[in-house]
Amino acid sequence: VTRLVDLEPVDVLEAQVTVGAGVTLEKLQAHARAAGLDFGVDLAARSAATVGGLVATNAGGIRVLRYGSMRHQVTGLSAVLADGTVVSRLTGLAKDNTGYDLTQLLAGSEGTLGIVTRVRLRLVPQLPGRAVALIGLAGTEDALAVLARARRLPSLAAAEVCYAEGVALVRSYASLGAPFAQSFPVYLLLECAAGTDPTDELLELLGECDELGDATVASDVAGRTRLWAYREAHTEAISAAGVPVKLDVSVPLGALPGLVAELPPTVEKVAPGARTILFGHLNEGNLHVNVLDTGTAGTEVTDAVLNLVAAHRGSISSEHGVGRAKARWLELSRSPAEIATMRRIKAALDPNGLLNPGVLLAAGE
Amino acid sequence: VTRLVDLEPVDVLEAQVTVGAGVTLEKLQAHARAAGLDFGVDLAARSAATVGGLVATNAGGIRVLRYGSMRHQVTGLSAVLADGTVVSRLTGLAKDNTGYDLTQLLAGSEGTLGIVTRVRLRLVPQLPGRAVALIGLAGTEDALAVLARARRLPSLAAAEVCYAEGVALVRSYASLGAPFAQSFPVYLLLECAAGTDPTDELLELLGECDELGDATVASDVAGRTRLWAYREAHTEAISAAGVPVKLDVSVPLGALPGLVAELPPTVEKVAPGARTILFGHLNEGNLHVNVLDTGTAGTEVTDAVLNLVAAHRGSISSEHGVGRAKARWLELSRSPAEIATMRRIKAALDPNGLLNPGVLLAAGE
Repeated sequence: VTRLVDLEPVDVLEAQVTVGAGVTLEKLQAHARAAGLDFGVDLAARSAATVGGLVATNAGGIRVLRYGSMRHQVTGLSAVLADGTVVSRLTGLAKDNTGYDLTQLLAGSEGTLGIVTRVRLRLVPQLPGRAVALIGLAGTEDALAVLARARRLPSLAAAEVCYAEGVALVRSYASLGAPFAQSFPVYLLLECAAGTDPTDELLELLGECDELGDATVASDVAGRTRLWAYREAHTEAISAAGVPVKLDVSVPLGALPGLVAELPPTVEKVAPGARTILFGHLNEGNLHVNVLDTGTAGTEVTDAVLNLVAAHRGSISSEHGVGRAKARWLELSRSPAEIATMRRIKAALDPNGLLNPGVLLAAGE
Repeated sequence: VTRLVDLEPVDVLEAQVTVGAGVTLEKLQAHARAAGLDFGVDLAARSAATVGGLVATNAGGIRVLRYGSMRHQVTGLSAVLADGTVVSRLTGLAKDNTGYDLTQLLAGSEGTLGIVTRVRLRLVPQLPGRAVALIGLAGTEDALAVLARARRLPSLAAAEVCYAEGVALVRSYASLGAPFAQSFPVYLLLECAAGTDPTDELLELLGECDELGDATVASDVAGRTRLWAYREAHTEAISAAGVPVKLDVSVPLGALPGLVAELPPTVEKVAPGARTILFGHLNEGNLHVNVLDTGTAGTEVTDAVLNLVAAHRGSISSEHGVGRAKARWLELSRSPAEIATMRRIKAALDPNGLLNPGVLLAAGE
């Protein structure tokens, strides 16, 4: 058990570290920072989330735009397979073309192929210079237009989107003032991070964007925290308002405005009077769809939303994973051939179905 | 066949493109550039190498430091498995946690699990501002010290290393003048690439490095090409001097100076009088080991070098792949448990061993 929560010294030359799977994200971040580096994944549940869980579910979060998902941080791991076989690869070589990438097969497999016990992770530079812009916009298309331009900034670190109804809920829950003199249908939060203060290049970018309804920029900690609150307090504010149906979907960026427009009427049809609140990670086309006041129509809402996402060639689980709860909808995102291939791999590594039965691949055919 | 060589229009919003597996790297690069973007992998064989081959072997090249290997460019693919099953995933979603990452399992599997027919690839920004430094140094440790500092530059795009004997061979082959007034044991080439001219930050970096024996910087095309020639002409110059034993290895960076020091005497022991020429991609600890004048001791040289690499916890194939030629040495880099797990996956997807028999996994146990 001790080994599961230990942290090896940071390898500064490689910018990597090996840790036990039971280490929390918060402890990993502190460990990396003490060595002058940082970790590429961050999310609100940092004090509870463990490295093993983050790898098994390929966690996302607010820095995916810059550094990728959890799987992209993993340069190697140790795992125990169902029959006790230990596959271990912890040298962290940046390049190693000697056969199948078992590490990436295990990452995101939701514990169905093996139990991750130890992980080698890449670390990233500390970027002390930060600037945040909150932007009011007329629609999702405008947010995408601003994003397309913002992507040219090497310092771009986050691009988060939320909508009027969610911001109103957050303001009421957290007693926050209005961000702007007028209200906007869409809010886009951009964060830049660099070795030196990126405020000037963020301001220059905003100056080039005709789409802006209004915008405010902060580079001090207090100001940045205040702007982030409009986005980050969504989950808490929604939970305080009721028990939502929570879905986590992504679609190609070109399909996002259509999805955003179609979601409320799609929900309304199966759950009249329900409130559909959207927020998420714009660059990855990833929307968290939270629906309040669904009454007894929770399953119908899930079914309607996930079918709509599938019609847009999207994913029914962008970053949260399939688990048992979404396994019956897996075929909306993966073809029969893909699911059959996954089952062949599952049968090869866990023929008796001992690991996480019913997760990802529902029992039976 | 037509489908195998076609290029779909570039999706500028997603910065992705879908192409047939038979498209050459050169055609892909031209296609991306015509749309104002670029492709993240480059290597000398660009006019012959196809996208399908690059994916199957997870090709590396000179831009891995900045963008990763070929597998990191692949956001989805279509492949035909041994039994005719077509697994296809071409939506290119940036985040999609719906089961096993079959795309990454197929990438780098050297055609042993399926035949890649179509690939969706991420594209990268065009970076017109470039500056190259060639640096003379006393040893590999000094090259690593300069690299550690250079990594702080967001514009760093390449860090290539070569040695006195190889540079002498290149100079004689290509009739190049000496890069510096005096000769150095080690040469480090750094390239920076950015939206604007990165020459100043490269010069500033060099000013901070006490290790420099000498250095020269070029930002114009002709000057950059001249400096790159000392590194890029190695393969040709070596081939002109004889038929080398070619090995492609990587070790953790901390082990690299030791490996560089031990390689020549290790080779000398099994092939007296042979010439060991080293060059490669410093940031990934990846050395191309080319040995000339091995006489009849080619296999002994391979065996001695790969065993030395394994003793340093390195990879016997950093970017070239295992193929049939290196399959007998696979166990130097992968544990029996890993190889057994690979065989289970191979048996699950290609039970009759129809695809590339003998490649990667030697026949029989």
